[in-house]
Amino acid sequence: MSDTVQSTPSTKLWGGRFSESTQASVEQYTASVHYDWRLYRHDIQGSMAHAKMLARQKMITDQERDEILRGLEAIGSAIEQGSFDFRPELEDIHMNIEKALIDLIGPAGEKLHTARSRNDQVSLDLRLYLREEGGKLIDLATRVQKMFAGLARKYLGAVMPGYTHLQRAQPVLLSHHLLAYVEMFQRDKGRMADCVKRLNVMPLGVAALAGTGLPVDRDFVARELGFPEVSANSMDTSGDRDFAMEFLFCCTVMQIHLSRLAEELVLWSSKEFDFVEISDRYCTGSSIMPQKKNPDIPELIRGKTGRVAGSLVALLMTVKGLPMTYNRDLQEDKEQVFDALDTVKSSLSITAELLENLSFRTENLREATRGGFMTATDLADYLVRKKMPFRQAHGVVGRIVALCQQRDIELVELPIEEYRKFSDLIAADVMECLSVEGSVNSRTSMGGTAGTRVEEALERIEKQLGIA
Amino acid sequence: MSDTVQSTPSTKLWGGRFSESTQASVEQYTASVHYDWRLYRHDIQGSMAHAKMLARQKMITDQERDEILRGLEAIGSAIEQGSFDFRPELEDIHMNIEKALIDLIGPAGEKLHTARSRNDQVSLDLRLYLREEGGKLIDLATRVQKMFAGLARKYLGAVMPGYTHLQRAQPVLLSHHLLAYVEMFQRDKGRMADCVKRLNVMPLGVAALAGTGLPVDRDFVARELGFPEVSANSMDTSGDRDFAMEFLFCCTVMQIHLSRLAEELVLWSSKEFDFVEISDRYCTGSSIMPQKKNPDIPELIRGKTGRVAGSLVALLMTVKGLPMTYNRDLQEDKEQVFDALDTVKSSLSITAELLENLSFRTENLREATRGGFMTATDLADYLVRKKMPFRQAHGVVGRIVALCQQRDIELVELPIEEYRKFSDLIAADVMECLSVEGSVNSRTSMGGTAGTRVEEALERIEKQLGIA
Amino acid sequence: MSDTVQSTPSTKLWGGRFSESTQASVEQYTASVHYDWRLYRHDIQGSMAHAKMLARQKMITDQERDEILRGLEAIGSAIEQGSFDFRPELEDIHMNIEKALIDLIGPAGEKLHTARSRNDQVSLDLRLYLREEGGKLIDLATRVQKMFAGLARKYLGAVMPGYTHLQRAQPVLLSHHLLAYVEMFQRDKGRMADCVKRLNVMPLGVAALAGTGLPVDRDFVARELGFPEVSANSMDTSGDRDFAMEFLFCCTVMQIHLSRLAEELVLWSSKEFDFVEISDRYCTGSSIMPQKKNPDIPELIRGKTGRVAGSLVALLMTVKGLPMTYNRDLQEDKEQVFDALDTVKSSLSITAELLENLSFRTENLREATRGGFMTATDLADYLVRKKMPFRQAHGVVGRIVALCQQRDIELVELPIEEYRKFSDLIAADVMECLSVEGSVNSRTSMGGTAGTRVEEALERIEKQLGIA
Amino acid sequence: MSDTVQSTPSTKLWGGRFSESTQASVEQYTASVHYDWRLYRHDIQGSMAHAKMLARQKMITDQERDEILRGLEAIGSAIEQGSFDFRPELEDIHMNIEKALIDLIGPAGEKLHTARSRNDQVSLDLRLYLREEGGKLIDLATRVQKMFAGLARKYLGAVMPGYTHLQRAQPVLLSHHLLAYVEMFQRDKGRMADCVKRLNVMPLGVAALAGTGLPVDRDFVARELGFPEVSANSMDTSGDRDFAMEFLFCCTVMQIHLSRLAEELVLWSSKEFDFVEISDRYCTGSSIMPQKKNPDIPELIRGKTGRVAGSLVALLMTVKGLPMTYNRDLQEDKEQVFDALDTVKSSLSITAELLENLSFRTENLREATRGGFMTATDLADYLVRKKMPFRQAHGVVGRIVALCQQRDIELVELPIEEYRKFSDLIAADVMECLSVEGSVNSRTSMGGTAGTRVEEALERIEKQLGIA
Repeated sequence: MSDTVQSTPSTKLWGGRFSESTQASVEQYTASVHYDWRLYRHDIQGSMAHAKMLARQKMITDQERDEILRGLEAIGSAIEQGSFDFRPELEDIHMNIEKALIDLIGPAGEKLHTARSRNDQVSLDLRLYLREEGGKLIDLATRVQKMFAGLARKYLGAVMPGYTHLQRAQPVLLSHHLLAYVEMFQRDKGRMADCVKRLNVMPLGVAALAGTGLPVDRDFVARELGFPEVSANSMDTSGDRDFAMEFLFCCTVMQIHLSRLAEELVLWSSKEFDFVEISDRYCTGSSIMPQKKNPDIPELIRGKTGRVAGSLVALLMTVKGLPMTYNRDLQEDKEQVFDALDTVKSSLSITAELLENLSFRTENLREATRGGFMTATDLADYLVRKKMPFRQAHGVVGRIVALCQQRDIELVELPIEEYRKFSDLIAADVMECLSVEGSVNSRTSMGGTAGTRVEEALERIEKQLGIA
Repeated sequence: MSDTVQSTPSTKLWGGRFSESTQASVEQYTASVHYDWRLYRHDIQGSMAHAKMLARQKMITDQERDEILRGLEAIGSAIEQGSFDFRPELEDIHMNIEKALIDLIGPAGEKLHTARSRNDQVSLDLRLYLREEGGKLIDLATRVQKMFAGLARKYLGAVMPGYTHLQRAQPVLLSHHLLAYVEMFQRDKGRMADCVKRLNVMPLGVAALAGTGLPVDRDFVARELGFPEVSANSMDTSGDRDFAMEFLFCCTVMQIHLSRLAEELVLWSSKEFDFVEISDRYCTGSSIMPQKKNPDIPELIRGKTGRVAGSLVALLMTVKGLPMTYNRDLQEDKEQVFDALDTVKSSLSITAELLENLSFRTENLREATRGGFMTATDLADYLVRKKMPFRQAHGVVGRIVALCQQRDIELVELPIEEYRKFSDLIAADVMECLSVEGSVNSRTSMGGTAGTRVEEALERIEKQLGIA
Repeated sequence: MSDTVQSTPSTKLWGGRFSESTQASVEQYTASVHYDWRLYRHDIQGSMAHAKMLARQKMITDQERDEILRGLEAIGSAIEQGSFDFRPELEDIHMNIEKALIDLIGPAGEKLHTARSRNDQVSLDLRLYLREEGGKLIDLATRVQKMFAGLARKYLGAVMPGYTHLQRAQPVLLSHHLLAYVEMFQRDKGRMADCVKRLNVMPLGVAALAGTGLPVDRDFVARELGFPEVSANSMDTSGDRDFAMEFLFCCTVMQIHLSRLAEELVLWSSKEFDFVEISDRYCTGSSIMPQKKNPDIPELIRGKTGRVAGSLVALLMTVKGLPMTYNRDLQEDKEQVFDALDTVKSSLSITAELLENLSFRTENLREATRGGFMTATDLADYLVRKKMPFRQAHGVVGRIVALCQQRDIELVELPIEEYRKFSDLIAADVMECLSVEGSVNSRTSMGGTAGTRVEEALERIEKQLGIA
Repeated sequence: MSDTVQSTPSTKLWGGRFSESTQASVEQYTASVHYDWRLYRHDIQGSMAHAKMLARQKMITDQERDEILRGLEAIGSAIEQGSFDFRPELEDIHMNIEKALIDLIGPAGEKLHTARSRNDQVSLDLRLYLREEGGKLIDLATRVQKMFAGLARKYLGAVMPGYTHLQRAQPVLLSHHLLAYVEMFQRDKGRMADCVKRLNVMPLGVAALAGTGLPVDRDFVARELGFPEVSANSMDTSGDRDFAMEFLFCCTVMQIHLSRLAEELVLWSSKEFDFVEISDRYCTGSSIMPQKKNPDIPELIRGKTGRVAGSLVALLMTVKGLPMTYNRDLQEDKEQVFDALDTVKSSLSITAELLENLSFRTENLREATRGGFMTATDLADYLVRKKMPFRQAHGVVGRIVALCQQRDIELVELPIEEYRKFSDLIAADVMECLSVEGSVNSRTSMGGTAGTRVEEALERIEKQLGIA
């Protein structure tokens, strides 16, 4: 590594001042290359931009730059092809690549780390990676939205109970229910886009923590890598993991939304609801009960919500109380981010497939709107239209419902004369508002479940999603 | 249960169909008015807009509207003055106000809840509240930023060690360190602004979950209340607490930033660091040890970080797996949001005061830059400028440091002849780059700690914060 | 407080060395008396034991001791009667009581804090408090268990579907299902008892952190207060909040168990399941939908699970990374513990009431055991008894189920000849094992659902719970 | 798989009733064998006991049992030697082993799953695994305790500042400080032992959820596997993961204790404290700063605390609100438990090594006891012994300290005449109690820092830990 004095026992790239080599158990405890290898493409991308800048600023020659670029490309290919030998004793992906580069191209490789620290390098890699993966999550959420839109289109007109407190509340269109999820994922996409916007800041040039005295051009690197800006304060940048926390939060909310859908699919697959049939290919059986067909996929999606939230908690707890700037604790960011990312990506993807492989039992949905006095609010609104104050109307209808319950009949089955005992504002035209279709289609307020409103919403969404 | 009107055993506004009154223990377990009373102003504001809309859409008369407005105003005043009688058996702030209104103005009051449910009402109240409180948090963060900027201005020129791994790494300007926090809170403000932007959607008109058949004008209500848009899907809106989760996350990151500062203040107040003196008025003593002066404020700020993160976890866990639309579980959102908000507000506020009431011991800061070989990177960069590959330079300097450690001397104390044994690239001019000031001021990369850079940053920040 | 030198501006009991009085905002931020007042009884109890020890060890006179005891008693009464004036500027319950004592009895009161610090005092108070409250939680869990046992006794013989994956799996006795919860709470009781055992250690005498040079008798205090041992290392004791974390964990698991029950009650109250009727007095209605009767209590219990877990997370995060010994961060323990405790206590209590106020619809439960091929495992076991390897039997039955599904018939409806096409091991006696009762009662393995087993279990439990 | 009717497209062991094979993406999403393979030894152990029971109860022949035992042994060896082919499409370790057994020994293998379900099988495996691993954690904690005891013995007599609020408070013995950690880990061991005691219950025989009608002998299996009891209620057992949550909690507290130590090691390694020197082999360097030697190990230990707590949160959140009995969500338990276990094991292990490879700078520790008025409490206690009420003494000493601060002198440097201006109770003998040694050795209360007490404690601990 040097020719001036005798080499020390340490073989590390940073080992100059160390008189003893690192303990094997320490290498094992501190190594990260078994998981951060997945940043290799972004690490190489960042190093290439850095090398171009070093040449432009005359810190290396153009020839050295070209050697570095070719060397990095070769290393990238080797990793892609699985022929790269990752060495845990070199700690992380950064050192593995740098060492391989030096082995491959010699002295020029030893110049790559000029004006750079692993602190800013890993921040760069992770930002490049999350910028890309954030985009993929948005695409996957879009794919799920399209499935919902497709189902909403397919089942347009089907009615079902709308629930509050898991009690049947008011009849709604199945399509309206399905499009509710489109809105949730729309917010998720916006939140993730904001997160990506906020992490889209170029950290390189911060070096260890204080900036560098070498004549770097941070703007050039930012342009090369497509960052709209460079980070403003080197010390802040060095220890900043806000973007990783925010990314984990965005993942958590996505998975929570998936968990809500999953809960519904589990309920709807039950014999008691029997609203949906999931294709055999998306269910599994029991090792003991031959008749079982279990909604494992939604159960696992729901179960994995804790996992993603757990990753968020892990990083929040890790960052809490860390003094300025980089502390090694921050190495713990990556596994949490990777695990959450993998979980949400696979969960979104399998959800999209699942939605493509289920069919609604529309007769059961319709059947479930019967009974339960689900048009009671419509009756109250009817009275309101006849100028009865809402609170009185609510009370009157409450008592009508109690009477029907007692007689075990539906609202539509109560004779008009009986109705009039409760209020002479009630006339024969009341029956219209007591029907399921009448109820659904009356709810024409913006965002409401009336067929016209839902069709409008669906068209808007289809357009937004680029569905023909 | 009843035959025309006489009152039922239930005295609840929703009690029409109930044959028994609610158990006292149930009232106690489910009541929320002991904490949601703090939404009263926003509840009244929302009800006023709603009443205006009802009149405009002819669901109530102009006279009824005026009665309602006057009544709500009177109730608001009564609450402000502490003369309002909150009744837990009326469950929540909404029912308390509605009941008081009915008691006050009679039948017109019974019309207020027309085309509205508590589900959309509470969503409205909470959005109005958080929109306002989000703005206040941004203002408080700005106040803290101003304190940092003021300190940075005051101590311009003071040097101190920059740390990584809590080891002295490279000398920096104290002002640079302080301005790092300005950047953190700047991100917090952006994140909170995005959150407020996302929650700034008008939910009223969703009614229970399906929209309403009554002729509401949601756009009018939105305009009245300053919302740029109305929510798109009634079912989604009914059970949506994404905005509360996001608000809690934003609070959590703010408090984590405060915890990082707090950790530093605790360290710096220790005898070992002795970098800062906190005014007596901002410390407390010991009940047993007469000499103690404890940095309680930063300790408590740090300690409260768990609390805010705990509130976030609480709500995430509550929302996980809830089926569509409103479920009573969601009532648990408010106490978490209120507690986190109070904690972050008071923590930001006391931090601003604390920053105003501390002074740095600049001699100690400077003293701490001596020793520790903090300009070793500068020596390596010196060699790089002389065209030694960085990795070789790093190794050479590592060995020079090891030699100095062995001899217990500083880098500047090693004779030039000794240096030249390590590399004949080293000449007498090396000494310049080994001084603390030389090192600091050499770091002129964008975002670096050089005096020129820090002054630029400070000017930009002062301008941004509107400091003269 | 003293007459030797001029009084300082600080009025704090610890203010001797302070030249400035504490800022009001600091008092507000650091005060805890608005919540730690609830330790007053245990604080007084501890102080009394301490005073007795001081007298016994001749650090105060017997007369002083008696004055202190009388004073403390008077203060306790004043607090009970609501006539005590809590002063936030005195920070906490300890200082409030000590100051009141000094005001009340003069110099003897100034001797109470001899050989004691707030660090060991608060640890003592909290241990005394949690020891007592842990016992109450165990009692409340017992009360809930008794309700389950009562229901199990009442509904003995009723059959229902046992579910896995929320799919009907095998028929079980309702009583068996109910007794499953008894086992959960039994573990909770054991876990809490272990926690109480571990916290039942006397901390007083540790003083600030290092022990005391005054001649205390820690064993005497322990005996006075019923502690089986004194803490072993003063520094460990001073900053130890393990017991609070463990208490919060025990609370969390209890609430999770309640959440599982709550989920079932919500499901069972739905129209789709319709297994249970909750009394009107334990439900609430809708402000808009007159027909609604919502299972608010179980929903809130479920929703509050996040809250309790959030408190646990809060404290874990607070304690993480704190250096030895007491740090002010630890003040945050109490609010979390109090809130979790209140939540679990009220949730257990309302659960007990709820269980007393619900009735099962046994016909619906029985009806739900029909269809769904729930005795398919019995058929497989039948084949196993005839020596077909289980895996083959499982496959055969799977195909029989598929055939029945195709024909839309039950297992009992398939003619014996058809059965024999699948395996000639099947004979006419197969029909016995296909009935619901046959299936249930066959499961006589220990812990199984057979009537005999369930009765045994119920008797054991009733005995254990002391039910006649 | 069967010879009676035509084979179906599904190739799963549970696939009889399925008309379509499982989607590849579903297999990938649901598979667990990539992590639950590590239960293989316990799975085989459990299956062996089960096979013996089946033979004993005449459900299989003795020859079949022997074939099964031999087959399982062969499979175990294959796995140990890395020659076993794990197949993700067989989902989990249980199905992988069962399928391999059938392939290996034919029909007898098809009988192994008699009277058993994966629900009780995985519960058994995990309990066996955690019982063993819990023991290993206890052993590792003991190893760490021994290191502390060794250091305490080695440095007996060394004094250092005891801190509260990270402020120097009272002088203590380093050994006393070190033994505080022994107490923490002692509680951890007790807590883990309680957890193991509670999970040491035999679940097999529960089958899917309801028990089995086949003539199993659960007591026999329990005895074979060393369980003191069998589980009491089959439904409870099927979905019970309390033991996994409790195990995760025990792991979390252990890691939190490690994080407290880690924080101290980071502080003590700083230039400012400079209390400890960690061997080069246990530190790492900087890629950019040649002089750096970073305490990476303690930083990572501290950083990993979030990870372990995150795993706990994950499982709590997963289990929340799950209805009775097994739900697929529970599959998520294992990765959390494995990750937490690996983290705590490696952290305990590297901590033990670290403690063996550090040395305290006792001169610096002693130096740090000077200044800071750390014997002020001793002065107050001196006055108490002279019968001044403690509160007055505290005030007097506070003012003496203020005076010394003003004059920038130590307590011992203040002339006796000056002392007497504050109180004529002070005599020449005061000087004894103001020395560091005098202070330390005066604290002879049980658990205090006096040399005699610490030696006693150390002897007790050495005996307890079996150190000669």
